[in-house]
Parts: sequence; structure tokens; C-alpha cells
Amino acid sequence: MDLPISWRDVDIAAAHLDGVAHRTPVATSRTADLRTGAQVFFKCENLQRMGAFKFRGAYNALVQLDAEQRRRGVIAWSSGNHGQAIALCASLLGLPAVVVMPQDAPALKIAATRGYGAEVVLYDRYRDDREAIGQRLAAERGLTLIPPYDHPLVMAGQGTATKELIEEVGPLDALFVCTGGGGLLSGSATAANHLSPDCAVYGVEPEAGNDVQQSFRRGERVGIPVPQTIADAAQTQLVGALTFPVIQRRVRDILTVSDAQLARTMRFIGERMKLVVEPTGCLGAAAVLEGVLPLAGQRVGVILSGGNIDLGRYGELVAAA
Amino acid sequence: MDLPISWRDVDIAAAHLDGVAHRTPVATSRTADLRTGAQVFFKCENLQRMGAFKFRGAYNALVQLDAEQRRRGVIAWSSGNHGQAIALCASLLGLPAVVVMPQDAPALKIAATRGYGAEVVLYDRYRDDREAIGQRLAAERGLTLIPPYDHPLVMAGQGTATKELIEEVGPLDALFVCTGGGGLLSGSATAANHLSPDCAVYGVEPEAGNDVQQSFRRGERVGIPVPQTIADAAQTQLVGALTFPVIQRRVRDILTVSDAQLARTMRFIGERMKLVVEPTGCLGAAAVLEGVLPLAGQRVGVILSGGNIDLGRYGELVAAA
Repeated sequence: MDLPISWRDVDIAAAHLDGVAHRTPVATSRTADLRTGAQVFFKCENLQRMGAFKFRGAYNALVQLDAEQRRRGVIAWSSGNHGQAIALCASLLGLPAVVVMPQDAPALKIAATRGYGAEVVLYDRYRDDREAIGQRLAAERGLTLIPPYDHPLVMAGQGTATKELIEEVGPLDALFVCTGGGGLLSGSATAANHLSPDCAVYGVEPEAGNDVQQSFRRGERVGIPVPQTIADAAQTQLVGALTFPVIQRRVRDILTVSDAQLARTMRFIGERMKLVVEPTGCLGAAAVLEGVLPLAGQRVGVILSGGNIDLGRYGELVAAA
Repeated sequence: MDLPISWRDVDIAAAHLDGVAHRTPVATSRTADLRTGAQVFFKCENLQRMGAFKFRGAYNALVQLDAEQRRRGVIAWSSGNHGQAIALCASLLGLPAVVVMPQDAPALKIAATRGYGAEVVLYDRYRDDREAIGQRLAAERGLTLIPPYDHPLVMAGQGTATKELIEEVGPLDALFVCTGGGGLLSGSATAANHLSPDCAVYGVEPEAGNDVQQSFRRGERVGIPVPQTIADAAQTQLVGALTFPVIQRRVRDILTVSDAQLARTMRFIGERMKLVVEPTGCLGAAAVLEGVLPLAGQRVGVILSGGNIDLGRYGELVAAA
């Protein structure tokens, strides 16, 4: 079966993102290396525009719309980073955007999304069907729907972080990537397989919500109830229809970490590396720093995928870790 | 009067630090720009080796010791970043180091200093005179004393952060630098005056401990009691004898900010820029973001000087901000 994305799609995405997305820094930590016996390279997507890798996929999808689609605009539903990414990228490209958000989303997030110039449509999480609202608006206004992960251009855009990482530090033995719906993981694995063919790519998800692990091991997509975890951006219930075949072909294994391991890793990265990373953004790092796999002697890449968290909440989580 | 350091000293320091110190990234923030009306460039010395700019001055001082001084080794007294910087740099250069620390210093800091291979000599903060202990050890063993700021090579080394900043982003209209003993401020001003002659350089210190401001305005060094402030690395009581004349000649003014302004700035930088910065490291940024001076339309540099803080304490400060 042909996969939904190839290396060429990642390469094209990188050309579109050149000069628009930040080429985020790669951080290293002597303590992380001592602890693991490995040489660990952390790609700082928490320092990406709007604080997460999501900017890459969103921009890559919007920039490739045709003139008529641009004129009509786009729609997304998201309470998190994807909605903000769509709002920001639409504003950069001068096209209208509608973001459907739950009315109990943090006021800061709603304000930020509006601040980027998007129209925010609020719904009641307990009574309304956000997909129905979105579909209706899309049909009425001819808006193009941009899903958060299950879209080839979104997946390819997310892969550009790994492209930059390997181009900067050279081939890797292993790469650790968080996974929710699989957009970042599928793009990252596509880039790593091409640029560093011997690199084993691992997806990492919260212990409480291991739907991708179950799916990967069973060979078919397995849905789960909304998982209880501090990794709120990885609370997906079902891996994508497009991302899954890429993950099956290109990823070595799916690992899990506990919330306690995530919180300790957030603290380590804050204290030792001076970086604020949200719980979901620590999934890959936690697998490495908590010794889920032996990595001594290896060159290891980690995507720190995002840093969008209320800092009061952050303070509570790290203080208790 | 000839000043203790010139641009040439900063340039020589930069050559010594090339490939040894991190060339730290420059961060920007759309929100910071919107709030101030300025274009603000944050030099991330919290991402420097051992988490603070202190690495630069310490290494520059140690690398220029002669063979006999290197053989005998160095000594520093410090409960903070300077001691750790000396320990790390001595270990990199393969020379012995003694660091005199209070016995009630955080266990983590004592362990980190020992971890770099230094001999740690503990003293009782209430009964012993650390300077007397240091002088005695230096005399007995022929150790070279490396003071934390009042030393031309230390001052010149600290100036290299500003050199990198201006070389990367171009000339500035204003530069904001924290000041305790004046090592970073004197080096930064020396670099800025040379590379961007029209740039106004401001020192920023905690409101509760404005000894540099008093000294600057009175034209002579004024000592104060130990100030009560969350900016623990700026709790100096008297500006340096060598740093002060440089500050008098090269700095436009000394400003102050309150602890509440510092805490809000820590939170802003954590939440918006995903960077952990210690209170002292936020002094320059607080003056800019809290609107101490009007900066609309200007190109503004800020040194985020360090990020060494217990993350539990960090969490408390930002949660309360």
C-alpha cells in the first residue's frame, strides 16, 4: 500500500516553512547524558511559534490551499494547540479562520485564538456535537476543514522538526516522539527513515491512554475512552486513519510512561535545562530519562513538542514531582 | 583615567570562549513586542553552560592563567553561580579548584560543585569569616583567587554575551542588564559602547537593594545592608572597585524593579517564552516589560542572565505572581 506521505512531502513542507517557522534550537544536557550513558539531543519545539510543533503542520496545510479555498477560509475544532496554530497561520496568510472551541476552554486560550484574528465559535462540551457544528459551518460558508493530525500536509509539516534535528546533529540511533493522534509521529518517522535509515523511531504515549500501543501491537486501530492523564494534548481516543499505516511501517515500537514519570521529567527539564515543557511535550524525554529502554552508547533524539501550559498549573506539577 | 577593561579585552575573551561557551540563542516574543511597542531581543544566558553567564567570565579568567598558576590551582568563595562556574571551568581546563561555601547552602548546589570535581570547603555563615578562610587557603597552597566580579578578565568575559547579541541582531537603541557587583553590566556596556555606540545601556537592580543606583547618582561607591529580595544573586552590598568606573563611564542610568515586578516577569517569560529564568535573571526583562521606561519604536536588548533556581521555589513564585 502506498503511504499517505513520503519524504518528498516533508521536504516540500520544509521549503514552505523556511523563514516562517522558527528553526528551533537543539539543547543538550550533561546530566541527561550522564544519567542515560547516551548522547541526547533535544529538539526544542516548545520554542516554536505559538509554543508547539503544531505551527508547522498547520502552516504547511494552509499555504498549499488554492486561491478559492483561501478566499473562503478554513475551520478547525480544537481546545488546544491546533486551534491556535490555525488561527495564527491563517492570520499570517491573510485568510479567514473559524475555530470551534468548548465554552469552558481556558479564557487565556480563547483570548489568544481571538488575538490571532480568528472567529471563535463556542459550544457546550456536554450538550453539543462539535463535529456537527463544524461540518455545518464548513458547508454553509464553504470553509476548508483542517483536521489536527489526520491530513497528509499536516503530517508532512510536523516531520520538518526531525528533518532539522538530523540535519543539525547528524544520524541518530534512536528517536523518541510523543504521540496522540499520530501526526507528529508519522511525520517524524518519515523524515528519520529517510535521513537516518538505521534510526529506531519510538512513539511514546501516556500509560493511561495507550491506544496507539494497543493498535500497533494488534495491527488495527483500537479506540479507548478518554484517558485520565496530565498529558492533556495526548488524550486522543483513536489514532488517525492516515497516520496509523505510516506508524505501522516506519516506527519500531510504541512505549508508555506514567504521569509521575512525566512530572519528574518536566522538573528535570525545567531545573537542568531551563525549559518549560508541557506534560505531553515531555513524553519522549520521559521515556529516555526514566530509562524505559537501555540507551547507553547511543545517539538519541527527542522532540520536546510543546510548552503551552498555565504556569500556575506547571508550578504545582513540578513542585509535587 | 584608564578603565580596567576595553573592547579589546572583550574581543580576546570571545576568542578564548569560542567553541567552549555555548553561543546562546536570542529569543523574541510577539507579545513582548506588542506590550512594549518595541522590538525586544532576549539573550538567553539561562541556557549557557551551568545555567548562567558566569561561565563566560570564569573560563576567561582561568584560561589566561600561566602554567605555574594552573598547576597550583584556583580558589573562589561563593554560594551561587560563580562557585559552580569556577568548579566547571577548572575541571574543563584540568586544574585544581577549591570553592568555599556556607554549610547551609542548598545540598543540590554543594553536590553540583563537588560533581564538577572541585574541593568544597564549608564554613559557618554566622561564626566564620569566609574571606579569611579563603585567604588562608590561598596563601597556604599558592592558589589564585578568582573573585566573582571585580576582576578585569571576569568582566571582559561577561561582555561576550552582548557581543554575540549585537553581532546577531544588529545595533540596538537600548540594552538592559541586571547588576549586582557589576561584572556583567561593566562587560556588557563595554561591548555595547563599541559595537552599537548609540545604544543606551541600563543597569537594573532590585528596588530593595539599590546600592549601584545610589553609587551611580552620588558618584562614589555606597554600601548598603544585605537587601531582602527574591533576586538572591543581586544581594550585593557594594559595587566593585573595578566595575564601578566602567559603569560610571559607559552606562546611561541604573533602574530598579520590585519583587512583584520580577515575579510577574518570571511568569511571563515562563508562560509566553517557555524559559525558566531565576529572579535575578529577570531584572533587565522586568524593566522592559513592566514599562519602567518608554521604549516604543526602539530596538531593545535584554540579557536573561541565568536560570538556576530550585524548581519547587520557582513554582511557588510564579503561581503567586
